[in-house]
Amino acid sequence: MSHHHKKDLSCFFEPQAIAIIGSFREGFFGGHVIIKSLMGAGYKGRIYPVNPAYRKARGLKVYASIKDVPEHVDFAMILINARSVAKVVEECAEKGVRAIVVVSDGFAERDREGARLQDELVKIARARGVRIIGPNTAGVVNTSNGFNPCPYEAGYYKLREGPVAICAQTGMINPQAFPYPVLGFGVSKICDFGNKCDLNECDMLEYLENDPHTHVISMYLESIHDGQSFLKISKRVTPQKPFLVVKSGATKEGAMATFSHTGAMAIDDKVFQAVCNQAGILRLDNFEELFKMPKIFASQSLPSGNQVGIMSFTGGIAALAIDEAARHRLRLAEFTLETAGMLEDIFPGLGRMPVDMGPMMAALKDAFDQYPRILEIVLGDPNIHALFSVLWASPKREILGRYIEAYELVKERFDKPVATWIYGPDPQLIAELRSQIEEMGFPVFEEPETCIKAIGLAVKYARIREKR
Amino acid sequence: MSHHHKKDLSCFFEPQAIAIIGSFREGFFGGHVIIKSLMGAGYKGRIYPVNPAYRKARGLKVYASIKDVPEHVDFAMILINARSVAKVVEECAEKGVRAIVVVSDGFAERDREGARLQDELVKIARARGVRIIGPNTAGVVNTSNGFNPCPYEAGYYKLREGPVAICAQTGMINPQAFPYPVLGFGVSKICDFGNKCDLNECDMLEYLENDPHTHVISMYLESIHDGQSFLKISKRVTPQKPFLVVKSGATKEGAMATFSHTGAMAIDDKVFQAVCNQAGILRLDNFEELFKMPKIFASQSLPSGNQVGIMSFTGGIAALAIDEAARHRLRLAEFTLETAGMLEDIFPGLGRMPVDMGPMMAALKDAFDQYPRILEIVLGDPNIHALFSVLWASPKREILGRYIEAYELVKERFDKPVATWIYGPDPQLIAELRSQIEEMGFPVFEEPETCIKAIGLAVKYARIREKR
Repeated sequence: MSHHHKKDLSCFFEPQAIAIIGSFREGFFGGHVIIKSLMGAGYKGRIYPVNPAYRKARGLKVYASIKDVPEHVDFAMILINARSVAKVVEECAEKGVRAIVVVSDGFAERDREGARLQDELVKIARARGVRIIGPNTAGVVNTSNGFNPCPYEAGYYKLREGPVAICAQTGMINPQAFPYPVLGFGVSKICDFGNKCDLNECDMLEYLENDPHTHVISMYLESIHDGQSFLKISKRVTPQKPFLVVKSGATKEGAMATFSHTGAMAIDDKVFQAVCNQAGILRLDNFEELFKMPKIFASQSLPSGNQVGIMSFTGGIAALAIDEAARHRLRLAEFTLETAGMLEDIFPGLGRMPVDMGPMMAALKDAFDQYPRILEIVLGDPNIHALFSVLWASPKREILGRYIEAYELVKERFDKPVATWIYGPDPQLIAELRSQIEEMGFPVFEEPETCIKAIGLAVKYARIREKR
Repeated sequence: MSHHHKKDLSCFFEPQAIAIIGSFREGFFGGHVIIKSLMGAGYKGRIYPVNPAYRKARGLKVYASIKDVPEHVDFAMILINARSVAKVVEECAEKGVRAIVVVSDGFAERDREGARLQDELVKIARARGVRIIGPNTAGVVNTSNGFNPCPYEAGYYKLREGPVAICAQTGMINPQAFPYPVLGFGVSKICDFGNKCDLNECDMLEYLENDPHTHVISMYLESIHDGQSFLKISKRVTPQKPFLVVKSGATKEGAMATFSHTGAMAIDDKVFQAVCNQAGILRLDNFEELFKMPKIFASQSLPSGNQVGIMSFTGGIAALAIDEAARHRLRLAEFTLETAGMLEDIFPGLGRMPVDMGPMMAALKDAFDQYPRILEIVLGDPNIHALFSVLWASPKREILGRYIEAYELVKERFDKPVATWIYGPDPQLIAELRSQIEEMGFPVFEEPETCIKAIGLAVKYARIREKR
């Protein structure tokens, strides 16, 4: 028997010795890039390139066959022609490899012949106790050990460690496709399921459930392999970790496209929605939210109720935010008389929700000096469970300093989620302020509506957790 | 009688001599900033600062009263305490000023006393034939003559000229609040209506209808002053110029907030939707779309039908795009046999829609050299009325060059709208490629769904235009 349990996916994320089987020519794709990425990310395991046509690849000896590798290999990544994959999987199994990522395409997503080749892989894998991710995948990343075998050139290799696992049936989540350096939160694991011939979302969910590095799970799905298992496992996971899902195939046309992309049958969208409701899954609306929405859970505490405060420099955005809040069943918080009084003492009209600092800003030369105190008073109100904070990134840098000061104070004193939107005339200043605020653990979103929606998700998740 | 017709708003956008009445202390708000902005934007008219407490402001003589200004003044901008505004409006009228922007707040949006002060303004304006924008506004911009009297520091002053007018009941559209330098298209006029005590969306629509610099109108509304007029004028405008509207107050809660922001009563959302349908207004869903969606109309021709092609490097995004296309009543285009044959000759599997260049990219070292030819073949297919183009901003710069080459070719040869989404590992590279593509007149959007939605709007507008 294998020395790993069939359910244990640790070989995919913590291998000690790996084989890369494919081409090693220079370019933006292939084994050459994988070695570069692993070395750049600081992976400490042994790397064995395999290809009979090469002798060296990025300074490493290349072996003609996996059989020639002089030690035990845990994990293999295969990037050869679809027709040759089965034979190599067989050889890997022979060698004792227990986890294989098949990057190659041309399987069930291509045509009938590809589907047949894929079935063959599955048979071998089942017979030999080997687990496969893919085929047609960009693979996995584990940030905690520098295991980033990205087969496409990303230009950066080390990813920031953090609590969020991102999984998808597409390589659009792998480092070459998304700018992780500016994500604003850290990532634990990345996994592109590809065609899901063997390992699927249920396996991954169970692995992440027990992964101490993962506290939030964000997943893009085109299909569900086994609805009953998915429901059962999700129910178990959601009281422990927020589980966010984007699903394509919501329309008939999308479902057809999904079929031709990974060969998977999409499930009926209404059924999927029912599964989400029953299992406490937070369903997202579009692809970008896969990266945006985990932010509200990455380092913020959960709100203790649905009353949201709004602080802005403009009534216009506040009105839009209130519309959005109503859509997400949030209530606009009302100040206690005490809070209102304190704010009115600072500037007339300030004690009303939504707090509009615009008039004060225009009237008082030192309006921004008061900002930290105002924020403190607002968040100190027991009626406020979460805050939507709008910041104007003024070209006057001293104002930005006031914001930072205020947020530092909030970080020390309060345990309420704050979602921030920054607007202003200079994208560079916005980016700087955003990065400083996110460093402190406060999520910044790119649209006002997204802030409200994120708070809505946090409130929803807090309720899900309470119920279970 | 005044030398301008009451309906003529040209004094607001093309004044020859202006007065600025308010404080001139240094800071991020006030008359001081207005002068700086006008000079920075290259405004050629005369500027008369007015304030009894100053002698000089940014090198200009300051007059104690508007009465002391030695020549005729077309336009005045007022930034003084709400209680003193009426008197100054009276003096302006006396002086022959016909267009006044009241920046000051503390009117109907504040309280009853403010509402009374606002009524007083309106009475004076009506009696004296003076038009007022505001109060509680950040004012106007005209890019064609450098008339940018922005009262808040933006850090930049000259805006790129272009076909899109942006209007709102909030200063969130004025230069200090939005990074116009990276907008990706040029702007003709900006107007913040503020409380709309006199000039409203109908006046502005009529002005923009006849403004030769404006070809697209994008407007954020919290309320409609006169539904019947709005419907009538919109019906006249929409066959000439696309008219895009974001409206808040869609929920009961939002409507209440709107009331306290500008003192305006919001109209029922269902009624507003009916007005949009009848008048051919393109309704948008959120605030960001006010800036994003005009892009598809700014320099692209209208699609001749609803069949959309998709070209990407990943099936995952294509599946999501097809979902979104179905929501916007777009059809996924099918290639003619001829096109399919030509594409299959380049790489097997390439002749199917959605076009997925992923497998080709992984298989061929020179895959990107073929990109211009593939794009040309795809757009040459008569079944394709518009294209959703997904580009991978690879860290290999030569690939970006291929994209540019391809888009140049498309610009010369085709008259079909192309909406582009760029993804990749490096935000800087994405921004560079985006800016190069937008320079050529092709809109780039920040989310795949937005590309499809923009194409959907273009198809919808093409139909609106056909019908009238």
